[in-house]
Amino acid sequence: MAERRFSEDELIAEIFAPLAGEGAFGLRDDAALLPLRGAREVVVTTDALVAGVHFFPDDPPGLVAKKALRVNLSDLAAKAAEPLGFLLTLSLPPDWTNDWARSFAAGLAEDARAFACPLLGGDTTATPGPLTISITAFGRVTRFVSRAGARPGDRIFVSGTIGDAALGLGVARGEAFASRLGHGARATLLERYRLPQPRLPLIAALRDHASAAMDVSDGLVGDLAKLLRASGASAQVEVAKVPLSAAAREAIALEPELLSRAVTGGDDYEILCCASADAASALALAAGEAGVALVEIGVVTAGAEPPQFYNSSGTILKFSRLSFSHF
Amino acid sequence: MAERRFSEDELIAEIFAPLAGEGAFGLRDDAALLPLRGAREVVVTTDALVAGVHFFPDDPPGLVAKKALRVNLSDLAAKAAEPLGFLLTLSLPPDWTNDWARSFAAGLAEDARAFACPLLGGDTTATPGPLTISITAFGRVTRFVSRAGARPGDRIFVSGTIGDAALGLGVARGEAFASRLGHGARATLLERYRLPQPRLPLIAALRDHASAAMDVSDGLVGDLAKLLRASGASAQVEVAKVPLSAAAREAIALEPELLSRAVTGGDDYEILCCASADAASALALAAGEAGVALVEIGVVTAGAEPPQFYNSSGTILKFSRLSFSHF
Repeated sequence: MAERRFSEDELIAEIFAPLAGEGAFGLRDDAALLPLRGAREVVVTTDALVAGVHFFPDDPPGLVAKKALRVNLSDLAAKAAEPLGFLLTLSLPPDWTNDWARSFAAGLAEDARAFACPLLGGDTTATPGPLTISITAFGRVTRFVSRAGARPGDRIFVSGTIGDAALGLGVARGEAFASRLGHGARATLLERYRLPQPRLPLIAALRDHASAAMDVSDGLVGDLAKLLRASGASAQVEVAKVPLSAAAREAIALEPELLSRAVTGGDDYEILCCASADAASALALAAGEAGVALVEIGVVTAGAEPPQFYNSSGTILKFSRLSFSHF
Repeated sequence: MAERRFSEDELIAEIFAPLAGEGAFGLRDDAALLPLRGAREVVVTTDALVAGVHFFPDDPPGLVAKKALRVNLSDLAAKAAEPLGFLLTLSLPPDWTNDWARSFAAGLAEDARAFACPLLGGDTTATPGPLTISITAFGRVTRFVSRAGARPGDRIFVSGTIGDAALGLGVARGEAFASRLGHGARATLLERYRLPQPRLPLIAALRDHASAAMDVSDGLVGDLAKLLRASGASAQVEVAKVPLSAAAREAIALEPELLSRAVTGGDDYEILCCASADAASALALAAGEAGVALVEIGVVTAGAEPPQFYNSSGTILKFSRLSFSHF
């Protein structure tokens, strides 16, 4: 006999309440008490994922849940904020199933535990449209690292590798280059698209040494332009220094124009940050000790023009689009 | 010439940035700093509205914005939490226009000012589905008033009037009773459906005197059952004491079965609260002094069964559905 679908109350009590942390009152209240854990300053951030826009409707529900949480944790990491908890708003389409809800919650529970970021509350609602997941995350900071603190002379760093997710989206879409990639590269790029790694280990390094930071979610080129606009500065970036994975290099070797996609495409969820010339080596060292490589890619300059990206022969590169935009 | 539609960046910079409060960094950062204003405890709550589910797609955008904020402010009020600010996540359907965005933001700005609850940040995204508005609101408390504190012997109170919004939805849908109502009653009920009044003036009274509280969003009967379940208690409620507006009484006089809808229908956004027999008169007095009537409707009893609603002849009423549910 087919299992009856959960009511709204059952969905909360049976599926999500087991994830509830301190201050969540077992999800039985209208609201939660944020566990401040001695915080003097609290960072709040929110990001929504829409099926068909940010993920494929048939992506594994546990992975979708993790991505929804991780894109928010990535914002916390960029602000040097240690996670305190999160709220989840789920707008469920007519065809949701109990199995979907169980898998979604299982993935969410794994990450909530792994990143010490408990569920505090939320809202569930029906929608005639696509599944929409909105998460608000909270973190505590001792020093908020804004986008606006970059100054001429500062060195520019980026964590991990850039472009894997944008190329992974190409793999997911079955683009021509994907079939020519080795199996390992295909799997790596796809994994990086589906499951970002929030760079929480960088929190202390950013707090102690960075002049400005943000996460790279809409493409390195466009996001650096945003950081510099907020800071009232410009920059020179050497494209050859932008860290690329072996998988991304394999794809770019097949189709050189994919380099442009790698540096302008979205979903990296790496940290873009700056530090004064004096603090730059301490920043890189602290990051390395935390297990996340930060690579220097350029320097902040005076001026209001967008950052210039040049190649090893000194030619300034032009990009047809700077970054991902929804509209 | 038709105006070009805003880009995502323009929408944020031109339409929403003027609403940004302290800690929002002009909406130019990934995240915001919550202005704690000396708070020792912070309440967080979130509620989403979906076009076609929670409001009509052609409702005035300024009213939709106000309702989206007010349903969250209502949750803060129920927890005796003073607003600190909010985050807004907008999932915009393909056909959104600049005029829509301007009207939406104008309504939101009015209420953000009126309720001293500034915009701190958010997210905008495209959706192929209906317009979806998700708001997370923050408040500071000196004593969090939970759902779980009601004890046998406590008196049960409700603010304002009950059922207007559920009947107003009937008016909006053009149900038969609506055409028989006077113009004034029709307008009153419709207004109450479209624009809830968050009972923030009750914060001090609840903080000082209430044993338990929640806002009535899914119907009085069902929401009282939830409060009692969380408290491990039952109740006796005299239906004749439930406060009804003149407009609701006019509708119920036309169709007596609308009484059942009034006490089980959603969207009241009134406060349901309890106080010990000793504190009850102080609670009602403090509420009255704050300009919001609290009416005593019954008493908490020992037991685990759902609350009993009886009429003036002592008959126990049965309801075919206890409250609004999305699924």
